[in-house]
Amino acid sequence: MSDTSNGSPVVKEIPPKEADLSAWYTAVCLKAELVSYAPVRGCVVLRPYGYGLWENLQRDLDLRFKATGHENAYFPLLIPESLLIREAEHVEGFAPEVAWVTHGGQEKLSERLAIRPTSEAMIGTMYAQWVHSHRDLPILINQWANVVRWEKATRPFLRTMEFLWQEGHTAHASAAQAREETLRMLDVYRDFAETVAAVPVISGVKSAGERFPGAVETYSIEAMMPDGKALQSATSHDLGQNFARAYGISFTDVDQQIKFAYTTSWGMSWRMLGAMIMTHGDDRGLRLPPKLAPLEAVVVPIVRAGDDRAVASARELAAHLQAQGRRVKADDRDESPGWKFTEWEMRGVPVRIELGPKDLDAGTVVLVRRDKNKGEEGAKTVVARAALSGALSAALDAVQAALYEQAQGQLARRRYLVQERDEFLARCRNRDGFIEIAWCDRPECEAQVKAETTATSRVLMPLEGESPACVVCAQPARVRACFAQSY
Amino acid sequence: MSDTSNGSPVVKEIPPKEADLSAWYTAVCLKAELVSYAPVRGCVVLRPYGYGLWENLQRDLDLRFKATGHENAYFPLLIPESLLIREAEHVEGFAPEVAWVTHGGQEKLSERLAIRPTSEAMIGTMYAQWVHSHRDLPILINQWANVVRWEKATRPFLRTMEFLWQEGHTAHASAAQAREETLRMLDVYRDFAETVAAVPVISGVKSAGERFPGAVETYSIEAMMPDGKALQSATSHDLGQNFARAYGISFTDVDQQIKFAYTTSWGMSWRMLGAMIMTHGDDRGLRLPPKLAPLEAVVVPIVRAGDDRAVASARELAAHLQAQGRRVKADDRDESPGWKFTEWEMRGVPVRIELGPKDLDAGTVVLVRRDKNKGEEGAKTVVARAALSGALSAALDAVQAALYEQAQGQLARRRYLVQERDEFLARCRNRDGFIEIAWCDRPECEAQVKAETTATSRVLMPLEGESPACVVCAQPARVRACFAQSY
Repeated sequence: MSDTSNGSPVVKEIPPKEADLSAWYTAVCLKAELVSYAPVRGCVVLRPYGYGLWENLQRDLDLRFKATGHENAYFPLLIPESLLIREAEHVEGFAPEVAWVTHGGQEKLSERLAIRPTSEAMIGTMYAQWVHSHRDLPILINQWANVVRWEKATRPFLRTMEFLWQEGHTAHASAAQAREETLRMLDVYRDFAETVAAVPVISGVKSAGERFPGAVETYSIEAMMPDGKALQSATSHDLGQNFARAYGISFTDVDQQIKFAYTTSWGMSWRMLGAMIMTHGDDRGLRLPPKLAPLEAVVVPIVRAGDDRAVASARELAAHLQAQGRRVKADDRDESPGWKFTEWEMRGVPVRIELGPKDLDAGTVVLVRRDKNKGEEGAKTVVARAALSGALSAALDAVQAALYEQAQGQLARRRYLVQERDEFLARCRNRDGFIEIAWCDRPECEAQVKAETTATSRVLMPLEGESPACVVCAQPARVRACFAQSY
Repeated sequence: MSDTSNGSPVVKEIPPKEADLSAWYTAVCLKAELVSYAPVRGCVVLRPYGYGLWENLQRDLDLRFKATGHENAYFPLLIPESLLIREAEHVEGFAPEVAWVTHGGQEKLSERLAIRPTSEAMIGTMYAQWVHSHRDLPILINQWANVVRWEKATRPFLRTMEFLWQEGHTAHASAAQAREETLRMLDVYRDFAETVAAVPVISGVKSAGERFPGAVETYSIEAMMPDGKALQSATSHDLGQNFARAYGISFTDVDQQIKFAYTTSWGMSWRMLGAMIMTHGDDRGLRLPPKLAPLEAVVVPIVRAGDDRAVASARELAAHLQAQGRRVKADDRDESPGWKFTEWEMRGVPVRIELGPKDLDAGTVVLVRRDKNKGEEGAKTVVARAALSGALSAALDAVQAALYEQAQGQLARRRYLVQERDEFLARCRNRDGFIEIAWCDRPECEAQVKAETTATSRVLMPLEGESPACVVCAQPARVRACFAQSY
C-alpha cells in the first residue's frame, strides 16, 4: 500500500473500507492529499485540500459564534508553569500531555513555559484583570488557535500532537447564565455537525469519569463510526466557579457583594473533519458534504480527437458558476476523462459535470452525483445548459441531504436500548454501536464496564421510564447512559 | 499614566503624540483595548477590538493571495533542531531567537524542537517530498500562523515574542519565475498598505546586510513613522536555490535533467497594524482607516429627558445599516452622549452618526468624521435619513482617502535627496525621515553610517542620474539608497 522511499508514504491504492477501516482511513487522507505526515513525531501537515475543509468549517462556525454574541481574540501560546498549576484538577489532567519550553535562544529560563494544551489558565488570568463589576459581564470570547498535547500515536485529524481548534471562553454573573451558555454552544455544535458536516450525533452530559479536568459538568456530541466506535466531536464545559476561584475572576455584583464569576469553555477541533471523512467515505475514496467540500463541483471536458471545443467550454462553464459564488473548477489537464473521473471521485467532489461533444451539440451537460453508485437511480442526469445553475444547486442539496440520511440510518440501526446485563456487556465488547442502558452513574460501575469491555459511557440522558435498576450493577438507576468503545 | 495594582497597566490618559510618541503609542493601544500585556514575558493578548483589525487585514490579504493563485495550508509549529540547521545562514540568523522545547510530559526529548520562528525549514522539507517533476511546479502556498522569536522588549504589534502573521512559501522551476513571484507579492503588500491601511510606503530591495538569512534578495515595504523612523511593514524574499539545496527540493525538468527548484517566501505580520496606528492616530486616540476598522460607524442617540425615541431609532438605524453589510453599532449604554463621543473618538471609529430629538423631528441624522478636527470644514454634516446609506458610504471613502493623503503628505515632506556627506549624516542622526543618496552598496560603508548615526539603508532603488560617486565614501555609486533609523 505504501512506499516510504522518500520518507513519506505514497499511497498506491485504497483498501476496502469494510475490511480494514483504519487502513482505509489513513490511505484516503493521504491519497486525497488532505494531509501529509510531517518530520516531527505526532504531527501532520494540513495540505491545501485539507485546509479547504478547515476553512469551510471555520467560516460556518465563526458566523454561528458571532450570531450568538461572541467575539474573537488571541491569547499567548506559552503559559508559565506557575499559572498552569493553579487549578489542581486541571493541571493533573493535562500535565502528562504538556510540551515544555525551557530555553530561549542560549538562555535557560528561570520558569518553564507550557505550550498551551488548552487556554483556561491564560484566559482566566486575563479575565481576572478585565472583570471588576457585573457591568463587565458576560465576557463572550472565542479563539481560533493551535494547541499541543503530547501524543505518541498519529492518526490524521483524530490524534495528533498539534492540532487546530477553536476554544470559546466565557464568564458570567450567575450559574444559570453559565449553564445556559454551555448548552447553547453544545447545540451550536450539534447543529453544525448535522447540517454542515452531515454527521448525526447524540449529545448529552458526561459522567464524572469522562469530565474535563476542572469542570463542573462536561457535555459532548458523539458521532458513531462505521466500526461501531464513538467519536467525541466537540465538548462544552460548565466550569462553575472553579477556574474563577483559581484565577481570581471576581466582580462587584448589583448587591455590592464581591463574587466569583461563573465560566464556561467549549471547543471543536479538526477532529470533526475526521468524523466526517470516516462517516461518509466509501471504497472509491472520500464523499464530502457539499457545505464543507473545497470544491462543490468539477467540470470534466470530454475531448474527441480533432474537436477541442469541450475544453474551452468547460472553462467558460466553470467561470460562469464561479461568478455565481460556486466553488467549481474545470479540469483541463492533459489526462483521460476516465482518469479524471476516478481522481475526483477519490477526492470526494460532490458533483461532476461532464461536457462531451454530444452535449456541446445538444446544449446540455451531464451531472453525476458522487454519493450514488454507478447505475443507481438519480446518479446521472442530463441537464440543459441554461438550467445548469439551478440543477447544480438542487444536486448539491440532494447530496448533502442524502449523506446525512445514510449516516442517520447507520446510526439508528446501531443504537440499542438494552435490558440485560449479559447482552449489554457482549454488545459493548463487540462494538455493536451505541449501547444504551438504565444506569446508576457510579464511577465504580463505569470502571468495571471498562475493565470488562473497554467501553465507557459517552453521554448521559434522562431516564424515560426504563427499569429502575442499573442494568450493570442493579443499584438504583439515575440516568440513561449510552456506552461505546471510543476513539 | 498607568496603574499596575492588579498586574496590568490601566491607562488613565493618553499623553500628547508629539511630546512622547512611544508613551502615546502604548497608551493608545491599551486604552482602546486593542491589546493587554500578558503574564508571559514579551507577549500581548490581542483583545476583540484589536482582533477585529486583524480579521479585516486577514480577509483582505487572503483574497489577494487567492486571486494570485495561492492556497492556504497549515504546517507544524515545532521544528526538529536537525532540520532547522540545514541552511547555514538561516540558522545563524535565527538561532539566538529560538524558543526550545526539551520535554514532552515527563519525558526528556532526544532531540530539541524549535518553536517556528519562520517555516522555511519545515515547508522546504515537505516540498522536497511533494515535488518530483516540473509538472508539480509551481507550488503556491500561504500559511496563517503564530511564530515565536525570543525578545526581551515588548511593544504592542511592533515587538513581541509571539506574533501572528502570514508566510507565503512558493517553489518554481526557474529563477525568473521565482523573482517574478517575489516582486508580485511585494506589490500586493504595497497596494494593501496604501489602499487598505492607508499607509504610504516606499518599496525596494534590501542591502546585503539587511537581507533575510539565507535569501538571495530581500525586498521590503517601509513606512515612515511620525518620529522620522522607518517601520519595515512586510518583506518578500527570493531564496534562489539555497533552501532547495539545503532541503532537497529537486525535480525532473522538461529536458529530463534533475534540477533544484527556486523558492520564495514572503510575510506580513500584525506589525502592519502598528504602522497603521502610529501613522494615523492623534491626541484624541486612534484614527482607523474605514477598510480596517472593526466598526465603520457608531450610532449615538442623544436622549432628551422624557423623550426616549432616540434609543429605539438608533438601534433601528444600526440594524438597517448592518443589513446592508456595514459594520455599525448603536451605543445604547446608559452614559452621556459626550462621554460616548470621546470614547468612540479614542477608539478611532471613522464616522459617528448622531441622532437627537431635533433630528428625529426633522428626519435627519448628523454625520461626524473622525479624521477632521472639531469645527473643521466637512467635519459635521446633516443628512436626510433616506440619504444616509449613500452619505455614509461617501463619508467612509472620504475618511479613507483623507487619512492616506495626510500620511502621504507627511512622507513627502520628510523625504530628502541629499548630495553632501555632512548633511546626509546629520539628517540620519536627527531622524529627519527617509534620507536618500547615491550609494556604493558596500557593507563596509553601511557599517560606517550605522556606527556614526545608527541609521541603516532601508531599501535600494535604481540610480536616476545622480552623482556617480557614493555620497558617503566617494567610491563609485551603484544604487540610490534610502537611509533611516528604524524600528
